[in-house]
Amino acid sequence: MELLQNDLLLRAARGEKTERVPVWMMRQAGRILAEYRAVREKAGSFIQLATNPELAAEVTIQPVDLLGVDAAIIFSDILVVPEAMGLPYEMEEKRGPVFPNVVRTIADIDRLRIAEPERDLKYVLDAIKIVKRELNGRVPLIGFAGAPFTIFCYMVEGRGSKTFSIAKKALYADAEFSHTLLQKITDSTIAYLKAQIAAGANLVQLFDSWAGILSPAQYREYSLPYIKQICDAIFEVPLTVFAKGAFFARQEIGQLNCSVVGLDWNMDPAESRLLIPDKTLQGNLDPCVLYASFSQIKVEVRKMIETFGTQHYIANLGHGVYPDTNPDKVRCFIESVKEYSESPAQTSSIG
Amino acid sequence: MELLQNDLLLRAARGEKTERVPVWMMRQAGRILAEYRAVREKAGSFIQLATNPELAAEVTIQPVDLLGVDAAIIFSDILVVPEAMGLPYEMEEKRGPVFPNVVRTIADIDRLRIAEPERDLKYVLDAIKIVKRELNGRVPLIGFAGAPFTIFCYMVEGRGSKTFSIAKKALYADAEFSHTLLQKITDSTIAYLKAQIAAGANLVQLFDSWAGILSPAQYREYSLPYIKQICDAIFEVPLTVFAKGAFFARQEIGQLNCSVVGLDWNMDPAESRLLIPDKTLQGNLDPCVLYASFSQIKVEVRKMIETFGTQHYIANLGHGVYPDTNPDKVRCFIESVKEYSESPAQTSSIG
Repeated sequence: MELLQNDLLLRAARGEKTERVPVWMMRQAGRILAEYRAVREKAGSFIQLATNPELAAEVTIQPVDLLGVDAAIIFSDILVVPEAMGLPYEMEEKRGPVFPNVVRTIADIDRLRIAEPERDLKYVLDAIKIVKRELNGRVPLIGFAGAPFTIFCYMVEGRGSKTFSIAKKALYADAEFSHTLLQKITDSTIAYLKAQIAAGANLVQLFDSWAGILSPAQYREYSLPYIKQICDAIFEVPLTVFAKGAFFARQEIGQLNCSVVGLDWNMDPAESRLLIPDKTLQGNLDPCVLYASFSQIKVEVRKMIETFGTQHYIANLGHGVYPDTNPDKVRCFIESVKEYSESPAQTSSIG
Repeated sequence: MELLQNDLLLRAARGEKTERVPVWMMRQAGRILAEYRAVREKAGSFIQLATNPELAAEVTIQPVDLLGVDAAIIFSDILVVPEAMGLPYEMEEKRGPVFPNVVRTIADIDRLRIAEPERDLKYVLDAIKIVKRELNGRVPLIGFAGAPFTIFCYMVEGRGSKTFSIAKKALYADAEFSHTLLQKITDSTIAYLKAQIAAGANLVQLFDSWAGILSPAQYREYSLPYIKQICDAIFEVPLTVFAKGAFFARQEIGQLNCSVVGLDWNMDPAESRLLIPDKTLQGNLDPCVLYASFSQIKVEVRKMIETFGTQHYIANLGHGVYPDTNPDKVRCFIESVKEYSESPAQTSSIG
């Protein structure tokens, strides 16, 4: 078994006691850091960076050195899975991801394969191996994938959307098509996460980024059963489910075979503790807090830790950090978590 | 007192018994109708249409004739209030509303006035009077305004945004600025709604379209108190509060001095009845259902009515109807509500 110098994240995820709250940030390896932007420039494009194992590894490790986070998360994109299934995407500078081909019929689904990670996603696995070697046990490495419903949205819609109305139309209009595609994505995702773990990922996180566009009934039919399949299949390392906007499904997510539940900043910490009593929680500072003054950031971090408590808890933002955030504000967030959670007795006098 | 031939909406709003469920749709006067698009073309632009009382009245009445809804809603925009306060907006074809000037300092706020509806918003009041005359009591007319926080978002940010990070930055960074601007918007909004009622509006609705970007704590500080002021000031007609995404504030909204609470499609009807026991509820079909087949629409409408029940209930979508919706599907939605809610006994055998 691997010996980690800092295993706070993994102990918190497993529900064990921690001497302070571990902290990391979604999108920590990214545009907030000038050092990232320099590597991105060198690579040429986002996709060239994500598919170059050496460079992807370099930007994965940057926030560990530069920000002091308690975990690295592999630099990649949730859309590598559809690409590995035979549906490539492009990244347009202002518009985000675009799929030149989309999936609209059973025949379209038949043309897709179940991803074979060692062949189709070798560049991610190689990046993970490099990161593990270079981290040399300093902090754990997080692997990740999109939840099947979120991947479905992109594959059917073909691009980002406020409403994903084409993808949602498919759910209401053609349940067979929808379930067939969701199952193929799920099978690919399980294989991919297992390969990430075999390559060295110490924890994996599922991002259901578009959970919030569904009604509770549709979420129960089209997203939860596939997340459940993944939770039941992954037993090697702790798994985190982060379903942005699925406030209505917290209780059901809390009953899945996962270790950690991620919360967005709309979800009240105290209420979430009641709804999800048996899991470690992760989150949930509003990323906009990092636009405030240093002193205001400290106030908000302290409030957050007081409501979550210092155990069974991983501090994070409630969403990915916004790209125009000042890295000094990010450092203030991270240092405040460490400071307040190490000495919670001192913090109980305010709030 | 005005005699209405169809007062189902008002009776439902007041909590009185209705023989069937009243139904209307947010954005019913709009791009879904070819007849609307023709008038819009004639007017030249959205703003030219909205500021022309005769044409605005014409498109307000169209859905009553063409779709069979139980209420008209005045054709206008929530951004007429900032304009009346001295902050004009433009409507860009693809990008939506844009404010050439924005509000970022106390000095910017000082340059704004509290709207005087009879002078600054006369075109809306004139349109209401024309609609009332031409409707001649067939159905009630709904007036509306944006909730202060949503208007604040546009005035500070200057345009639509996924995150409204500039506006939210102001909340975290400068509480005094934020409360001062919110109060000025609130005072303008109360004057505007009272003028709409004096001109003939039978019910008014507050749209807190961006409620869902706030944390529960921020919503409690920056949105609810201003909605409360408006609810307390408007006593002449029933008032509806629709705060999209504010699932976490349903209980508090349910305790306001309002008659109706609007729900989006993420909010479970049964849970919402428990959280808001004393109000009429309005909503909440996912607008994407109207992309499904006629038979599927009927199934979903029936489910909705069975969960809400036929009393203390106004049927609507959970958001504005999407502009590319087939009007025949819209008619199917409206007719299904009427059909199933008139004979609920027949529907209790399924579901």
